[in-house]
Amino acid sequence: MNSGPQPSSASPDEPFASTDANRVAGPLAYAQYAVFEQGLELSRGGQLQPVQCAYETWGKLNPQASNAVLICHALSGDSHAASHHSNDDPGWWEDLIGPGKAIDTDRYFVVCPNVLGGCRGSTGPEDKHPETGKHFGADFPNITIDDMVALQQLLAEHLGIKRWRAIIGGSLGGHQAMTWIHRQPDCTDLCVIVASSPRLTSQALGFDIIGRNAIQTDPHFRDGQYYDYPERPDTGLAIARMLGHVTYLSNEAMESKFGHDRHDPREIATDFEQRFSVGSYLAHQGQKFTSRFDANSYIAITMAMDLFDLGSERKLLCETFAEADCEFLLVSFSSDWLFPPHQSREIVNALTTLDKPVSYAEITSPRGHDSFLIAEDVAQYAPLIQAKLGDLTAADFQLSQVEKIIVDEIPEVASVLDLGCGDGRLLAELKRRGHQRVVGVEVQQENLLSAGRRGLDVIDYDLNEGLPAFGVDQFDIVVMNETLQVVPNIERLVDEMMRVGKQVIVSFPNFAYRSLREAYAKGGRSPKAPGRFSYEWYNTPNRRFPSIADVEDLCQQKGLTIEKAIYFDNALNTQIAADNDPNLNADTAVMVLSRL
Amino acid sequence: MNSGPQPSSASPDEPFASTDANRVAGPLAYAQYAVFEQGLELSRGGQLQPVQCAYETWGKLNPQASNAVLICHALSGDSHAASHHSNDDPGWWEDLIGPGKAIDTDRYFVVCPNVLGGCRGSTGPEDKHPETGKHFGADFPNITIDDMVALQQLLAEHLGIKRWRAIIGGSLGGHQAMTWIHRQPDCTDLCVIVASSPRLTSQALGFDIIGRNAIQTDPHFRDGQYYDYPERPDTGLAIARMLGHVTYLSNEAMESKFGHDRHDPREIATDFEQRFSVGSYLAHQGQKFTSRFDANSYIAITMAMDLFDLGSERKLLCETFAEADCEFLLVSFSSDWLFPPHQSREIVNALTTLDKPVSYAEITSPRGHDSFLIAEDVAQYAPLIQAKLGDLTAADFQLSQVEKIIVDEIPEVASVLDLGCGDGRLLAELKRRGHQRVVGVEVQQENLLSAGRRGLDVIDYDLNEGLPAFGVDQFDIVVMNETLQVVPNIERLVDEMMRVGKQVIVSFPNFAYRSLREAYAKGGRSPKAPGRFSYEWYNTPNRRFPSIADVEDLCQQKGLTIEKAIYFDNALNTQIAADNDPNLNADTAVMVLSRL
Repeated sequence: MNSGPQPSSASPDEPFASTDANRVAGPLAYAQYAVFEQGLELSRGGQLQPVQCAYETWGKLNPQASNAVLICHALSGDSHAASHHSNDDPGWWEDLIGPGKAIDTDRYFVVCPNVLGGCRGSTGPEDKHPETGKHFGADFPNITIDDMVALQQLLAEHLGIKRWRAIIGGSLGGHQAMTWIHRQPDCTDLCVIVASSPRLTSQALGFDIIGRNAIQTDPHFRDGQYYDYPERPDTGLAIARMLGHVTYLSNEAMESKFGHDRHDPREIATDFEQRFSVGSYLAHQGQKFTSRFDANSYIAITMAMDLFDLGSERKLLCETFAEADCEFLLVSFSSDWLFPPHQSREIVNALTTLDKPVSYAEITSPRGHDSFLIAEDVAQYAPLIQAKLGDLTAADFQLSQVEKIIVDEIPEVASVLDLGCGDGRLLAELKRRGHQRVVGVEVQQENLLSAGRRGLDVIDYDLNEGLPAFGVDQFDIVVMNETLQVVPNIERLVDEMMRVGKQVIVSFPNFAYRSLREAYAKGGRSPKAPGRFSYEWYNTPNRRFPSIADVEDLCQQKGLTIEKAIYFDNALNTQIAADNDPNLNADTAVMVLSRL
Repeated sequence: MNSGPQPSSASPDEPFASTDANRVAGPLAYAQYAVFEQGLELSRGGQLQPVQCAYETWGKLNPQASNAVLICHALSGDSHAASHHSNDDPGWWEDLIGPGKAIDTDRYFVVCPNVLGGCRGSTGPEDKHPETGKHFGADFPNITIDDMVALQQLLAEHLGIKRWRAIIGGSLGGHQAMTWIHRQPDCTDLCVIVASSPRLTSQALGFDIIGRNAIQTDPHFRDGQYYDYPERPDTGLAIARMLGHVTYLSNEAMESKFGHDRHDPREIATDFEQRFSVGSYLAHQGQKFTSRFDANSYIAITMAMDLFDLGSERKLLCETFAEADCEFLLVSFSSDWLFPPHQSREIVNALTTLDKPVSYAEITSPRGHDSFLIAEDVAQYAPLIQAKLGDLTAADFQLSQVEKIIVDEIPEVASVLDLGCGDGRLLAELKRRGHQRVVGVEVQQENLLSAGRRGLDVIDYDLNEGLPAFGVDQFDIVVMNETLQVVPNIERLVDEMMRVGKQVIVSFPNFAYRSLREAYAKGGRSPKAPGRFSYEWYNTPNRRFPSIADVEDLCQQKGLTIEKAIYFDNALNTQIAADNDPNLNADTAVMVLSRL
């Protein structure tokens, strides 16, 4: 059986700091191997019998077999997701997995298999056909992500795991995670999909095709039967890898790496073009890769990734996830142009349409697709995973008077959507009171991550652009607390809130408050008052400045019923009665609205 | 001498509509050839002697030789920029050049040379060394954009042209145009730079390097000496070309071309991967290209482009343009990620720092780098070129009362910068009154293009992000008419205005106007009044709502002197005297400000 490639010739003195720089293509010292004599029937026809899965594990499976976490690696990854002890090589997700880390190997039994078609221990093109004794080469059957997952399912059975605590994957690993759900909707408690997509963009597909073409036209490729020759199709593979590298980096990341010394190639022992520092970096990446990765494997895996397609319409995406009974967490990165955030948003929209529990964060990062592996970015999203695994790290909170008023207006056990949920305190209080289904929408990253740390379902969305794809009356209550004045697109927002919630509770500052009117009417200056109205006209973050009367007018115009209204004056810390001219005397209003 | 490649095998039934689709690699029937026996000394050493330039011309040179327009082509272009008659093949800039078009061949003598190093008639790697009789191949000396321009200078001299009416180029053509200016600052009246940059991004550089590597590692490359063999390095060249293609298209453009039928390869006769429709398109592009382009040429030209570097600091950029005595027009495209708009902005900033006359438009387009050649996008920017060539196509206008007040406050012959200049009417009026140096800044595309059509210098900038790189007291007067209330970043804007203008004239609506106070104080609703204050609180585009008193306060706070203030009431169509409580009775104020 394939025992892995030769150790890389990369020297310890890596001239470049990169996610790959620490990867030594060692002999996978901790890999275990499971051989399945019954083999696999493949989704596009044909079979592989027997079939082998190489994998590594960390931690211990508990007696109930309820603490197993599956890690799905990306294109050039392998089973070595993390080190096994302090003298071991670091893994490709070292920052995420380990004792005391977000995926805590002291608590969970973590499993990372090499994908089918890979060259790092699992059955792949480098293996020999059991009957002919010849290397499969390019005759390795066309495999799909489904086939990769089928092998992982055999492994799970082999390890005695009926249901995962979590399945977690980035990029191609995300494709695998989604395929697990599709094939076996009850396979896991939690599904984490990072920097991924329902399918490659046509652009990403184009790059893959070009890369594969470079490999296949390499003179040493020999239709994939190169194993018995001294030369490998290294040049073609290096071209494919260099191309991949440029796509994993954001434009910004490339400039900061290379812009300043672009005409100074760094010292590198290669016969590749050395004129530019970018060139030497790429040459280095290409060369390093060819010593640890098999060309046929690269073709097999990228082809599977290119074929992966959950569809471009929400209806199709919904079909994939309809039967899922797990929680979902998705993460994307702002500068990832290969798996751009809007693609994660498509998946989130399908899940919200299906009313599945989902959290989504678009992490602001300049580091492109690579972000999901880079320490600084992992530090941002790891706590979200940690929280979903039950380890909450959020700060305590105190509700304001108005927040208490709102919470008291919410019927017991009601499902609640909080638009502009801030750090999630209102929802956390509702959870404390026994509400099951509570969801937040928030666009400010720090708030979003704080809410996530509370273990809440929070979705990264700019309310000005719209809501995630919720359906009519999907929630008993939609709350919008102190958010009305910061969203420019008021009409759409109101329409959406009223569509999605059976009832809406909205609170907002009243811009016709007494002190403001006085400042304006007498002083002839932009209204201003101590406390919440203390911004200057030229720096207020508020976008809209409605009075209570204005909002009442809008409700009438839209045929909305104000079921109840509570008025408050923060300066006096007291409610204002309805017959005491709240439009003048209250600085805040809380209104319960419904459609006529 | 090189008479051009064989006709392409592309059929009239092109399965794909693309900018290349109409290009038939014909035998350049209208090319003329100028041979320079004295040759060229090359900037990186070595020489080419003799040296030949292939070129095409349209129209007639006038007796003063003052109507010549130079067209610089991009990477895969050639001399055939436009057709010569109705039965001729269309050229690569057909939509821009021709009788009655923006570059009107009935009025101008248009010249388009093939670049040095090219394979379409000018001296290039396919040519034979005059002494050895061998094809240059990869031994063709390393050429730079400077060398390309040096050849063009010989051609200009040959044609009797001392100064161009305009030099116009896109992409690599823009690099040539800028190099002309650098080498010969008085070479032209007008310099038009489209979809270009001071240097390639590190990312674009990375793609070029990968593409060149693919060519050089093609088994049929033979160190560039492939001319006498039946096989060409077509595979490598096709890979490079396919890669280029993906970079010319925006992600959006690729999706709309291929997303919907991605698993249906279109009918194409090629042995390249056909699994995906993207693949067949790319295969087609690759194949088409290899029949009309020489691999060594591709290497020579991309290398020159990669070496082109005006520097990444403004200081260096300024050095390039310091002595220029022409007008500049730059155009970029929003979805161009290969030559992204911020790179054009760098050039614009250097030019504004140098106080050169410059116009800049970032055209909103979904078509990526290709946009500069596509009819729909050419239609957007062609009128700007037309206007700069003296053919103004703008609508008449009537100044408002307030605009007249502003214009009357501007001293004769003062230089004026109008921030948020709208369609440029105020500046047009100033030009009519004899002001020479007037510049507008505007972000809304329709306005911007209208202002451009008046032949004005207008720069595409979002005032909220800042101003173009103007210097202290660069203008006698900075005007901001009815713009103060739409820019959120007031403080920075005011600081910038006061820095750049010796004096500032600002007009704005007064939000403490009588009717507004009444509506608010009595009605307790967001201030609203007929006419300019008639927006609803939930849909006003205004971002700031200052009163006259607020602005006076801010001026005091910032140590600014209000030299003069004029107050107006549009409802009564009359000025309001200073002692008639303008903060109450005027709906508009015009203030002349200066630093203390």
